[in-house]
Amino acid sequence: MSAQTHREPEGSLLIAWQLKGKNVLIVGGGEVASGRIQHVLDAGAAITLVSPADGLHTLTKSFIESSDRITYHDREFNPSDLDGVDMVLTAIDDVVVSRDIGIRSRTLRIPVNVADDPSYCDFYFGSQIRRGPLQIMVSTNGKGPKLASLIRQRIEEAVPQGAGEAIEKVGLLRERLKERAPGVGGGIGRRRMQWMINLCTTWEMDDLARLDDEQMERMLVEGWEKNIVLSPEEVRVHGSRVRSVENN
Amino acid sequence: MSAQTHREPEGSLLIAWQLKGKNVLIVGGGEVASGRIQHVLDAGAAITLVSPADGLHTLTKSFIESSDRITYHDREFNPSDLDGVDMVLTAIDDVVVSRDIGIRSRTLRIPVNVADDPSYCDFYFGSQIRRGPLQIMVSTNGKGPKLASLIRQRIEEAVPQGAGEAIEKVGLLRERLKERAPGVGGGIGRRRMQWMINLCTTWEMDDLARLDDEQMERMLVEGWEKNIVLSPEEVRVHGSRVRSVENN
Repeated sequence: MSAQTHREPEGSLLIAWQLKGKNVLIVGGGEVASGRIQHVLDAGAAITLVSPADGLHTLTKSFIESSDRITYHDREFNPSDLDGVDMVLTAIDDVVVSRDIGIRSRTLRIPVNVADDPSYCDFYFGSQIRRGPLQIMVSTNGKGPKLASLIRQRIEEAVPQGAGEAIEKVGLLRERLKERAPGVGGGIGRRRMQWMINLCTTWEMDDLARLDDEQMERMLVEGWEKNIVLSPEEVRVHGSRVRSVENN
Repeated sequence: MSAQTHREPEGSLLIAWQLKGKNVLIVGGGEVASGRIQHVLDAGAAITLVSPADGLHTLTKSFIESSDRITYHDREFNPSDLDGVDMVLTAIDDVVVSRDIGIRSRTLRIPVNVADDPSYCDFYFGSQIRRGPLQIMVSTNGKGPKLASLIRQRIEEAVPQGAGEAIEKVGLLRERLKERAPGVGGGIGRRRMQWMINLCTTWEMDDLARLDDEQMERMLVEGWEKNIVLSPEEVRVHGSRVRSVENN
């Protein structure tokens, strides 16, 4: 039935939330909380962690010890913990307390996730992959967490090894291109975009991942200026020629 | 350098935002806006769309005509459009107006995305896959949109055809299991979870996708009750036996 309807509104809106320099309150310190801590640290936020010390998971302890972005309080949740907070994540066993935190957060319009209690959540987490700037999330909208994790494994095998590094290099090259050929929108913007697309579609990801500083310069000087995309072979062969001349 | 540091804080927090029954304001009606409309409708929200009619993309027009969840206003943005709104997405060319919408939304603590203007965004979008309840997002944190789309294509090839249907069926089976063996947490919760994990790891996704109503019942009666997971062959062979007896 659902496969035949035009739209299936049972889904979520998948988004990449920006947390750099933000403050996240995490209530709870067990295994689930430790996973949340890792994701939030990876996203660049500061964390206020509230949990009695006897409930801390080993991983949570090591995060508290190793990160200077975690402020830890060895006690239960207190409503004033919500002051000045940009996001709230709870992962505690007490249903009454966690729902209370959920309701208070919503009243204050602070995005909130209450673990294991979907109706009190503004958002869910999914199964995740991270390779440098590349992030992938798999969500089954709560219907099959184990299958989500199996699908994540297949995706990890399918994504080229050099994908993260390739994205890093392409990002750098694009910045250098913008310096060389500045200007927003219009003809120059379109030409830059088309040149980057041609590069990304003709090069293998592993070749992009191996791009070095000197090769990027050559691609810009000898490629962009003539409005062509050099092949990996041209960039590398030429590179060794230049070097052998220098060596003589 | 970045590959050697322990944590890379340049990332985002990937989340599945819940929009069922929520109100989303979309300012703009061009191609980018039409993509936003599709994602938001898929997530179950109602949309208020504000854009002069002469700027509407063909896709946007068809969404306005076909969906009863879109309220369309043929005019420019007005600050009162933000009243009672749960999320704001802008996709217009006017930088001044879109930044103004971004700032107003933040002041009101309404999550906002301003297309092409990262510093005014609470969140970004990524390259997406949807198959029924399965949703996957690829984000390069703004560094390589073209590579994100190439990686999305590889993922689409790697995810088994029946994955969406398999998740749907596993979700149904889990609900029926909860009815048969109710109770929250503790021993029964762990036993249910372990049985579902055993099922998901021993069955191929395409076999899960083919599970029908009668077979689910058999898995519960003859599998769960004996604390075993029947194989696809056992479920199917047995099924034909039962049927042949009934036919006599």
